[in-house]
Amino acid sequence: MTRTEPGFEAWCTGQAARAEAALAACLPDERQEPARLHEAMRYAALGGGKRVRPLLVYAAGELAEDVAPAALDAAACAVECIHAYSLVHDDLPCMDDDALRRGRPTVHVQYDEATAMLVGDGLQAQAFISLGALDADCLAPAVRVLAAASGSLGMVGGQAIDLSAVGRRLQADELERMHRMKTGALLEASVTLGWLVGHRGEPPPAALSDYARAVGLAFQVVDDILDVEADTATLGKTAGKDADNGKPTYVSVLGLEPARALASELGRRADAALEVFGARAARLRGLADLIVRRTS
Amino acid sequence: MTRTEPGFEAWCTGQAARAEAALAACLPDERQEPARLHEAMRYAALGGGKRVRPLLVYAAGELAEDVAPAALDAAACAVECIHAYSLVHDDLPCMDDDALRRGRPTVHVQYDEATAMLVGDGLQAQAFISLGALDADCLAPAVRVLAAASGSLGMVGGQAIDLSAVGRRLQADELERMHRMKTGALLEASVTLGWLVGHRGEPPPAALSDYARAVGLAFQVVDDILDVEADTATLGKTAGKDADNGKPTYVSVLGLEPARALASELGRRADAALEVFGARAARLRGLADLIVRRTS
Repeated sequence: MTRTEPGFEAWCTGQAARAEAALAACLPDERQEPARLHEAMRYAALGGGKRVRPLLVYAAGELAEDVAPAALDAAACAVECIHAYSLVHDDLPCMDDDALRRGRPTVHVQYDEATAMLVGDGLQAQAFISLGALDADCLAPAVRVLAAASGSLGMVGGQAIDLSAVGRRLQADELERMHRMKTGALLEASVTLGWLVGHRGEPPPAALSDYARAVGLAFQVVDDILDVEADTATLGKTAGKDADNGKPTYVSVLGLEPARALASELGRRADAALEVFGARAARLRGLADLIVRRTS
Repeated sequence: MTRTEPGFEAWCTGQAARAEAALAACLPDERQEPARLHEAMRYAALGGGKRVRPLLVYAAGELAEDVAPAALDAAACAVECIHAYSLVHDDLPCMDDDALRRGRPTVHVQYDEATAMLVGDGLQAQAFISLGALDADCLAPAVRVLAAASGSLGMVGGQAIDLSAVGRRLQADELERMHRMKTGALLEASVTLGWLVGHRGEPPPAALSDYARAVGLAFQVVDDILDVEADTATLGKTAGKDADNGKPTYVSVLGLEPARALASELGRRADAALEVFGARAARLRGLADLIVRRTS
């Protein structure tokens, strides 16, 4: 059941490079004062990462007949800045205390803890600076979506539940709720932002939200599977750390095979939701497939 | 030279209570999951503080003939959420490592470091959630102003310079630049946001920006004077800590009397800038006076 059309991998590579270039242009230059902060912000956000969220923005943008590339870039930078900031803060000693990220020393190891804190804070602000480039009719719903996905009822709230869940046994529905907030919310927002930019701020149809929710959850289920299966070199981050930290995962709650089955089911659900969009949804379909089948 | 009109103190008390009520309504309820995070966010943002930034929003809103109270409240909450988040992160062990704030234990002491980190992150997002209540024509410039004032070329950048300045001797112009970013940017943004809400997103006149810049800097000069002169009980935070930490201040760079003279001069400059606005600027005039003469 491969849904991947010819040229899809090349599209991904090209769009990831496009996101990298857009981020490099959006972040303050590292010669600009405070230079060390800007260098560290660029270290945190550039030069790595799968750019899944920007790819979702670009793919959802293709649902529109005509879309301004610069506006899509602004939305792509915004979601990636939020993602990058969350990784920097997550890696700090008071959180996950991780020394390795994307195969490189984490920001607080490469710089220092105070700088890492400010890098995260600055990248969150940078996300909204980036959205500031949008036209007012699109900017307003985009800010509402991104802020809600990032805040205490979205990503940050999911991290808080994650912290409190260490060493506890969660039910499958609690685990789903946590991951929908922690990872799913921002992935969903990425899809929504791509739509909003292409449709002058018009709300997305329910089918697109169904797709986004399925993909958002699938991403985390696969993450949990990879945390068990892959090695540190492939992941570019410490493998097995969730299990080691006593964190509940889809694998620990459901078991490995049921977790794999859930990931496949979510992939099918994402695919089905896209039917109404026809050929325009080819990239979104490819991304769902990629997210379910990824090995790192 | 008192510029304070009768009833000004009562206005301040009333508007501070209004800001408190607006914040209490804007922040997620502490029974809402994740409950501990929401409790800590409310602990950080409610029940204390002079509410200088909301007062500036409300006072600048009075420059308009007609302004929607709920929209001003949204802007007031937004600037205060940014301010509250910056205090929570600033107090962490890897930054200023302070145990006392507004006469109470700081968030990481009352809760824990990981929660304090997430509280700050969540409050920053909450600021933009709050702006989301504005109409699109006002929301767009408001987001641009607040994000720029908060980010690496505003508040966060000022904190980074502050960190790197410990133990170094700064020139007066370096010190001014640091403080314009660290404290001034958000105070200026408060004035601008009040104007934007009252004027449907129309940019503020230069005279208002002059006022805001003077008041923004005066606030920090007086802060530095109070850090030397006041005691911990009056301040509600640890007195003398900047000097103890080897941080350059207006008092250490200029001396106490020249710092006092600078504060008065900035007060006069703020006053002069308001002339074009006539009687409508009475509260802004009163706030400049209050900021220069405050004792805590």
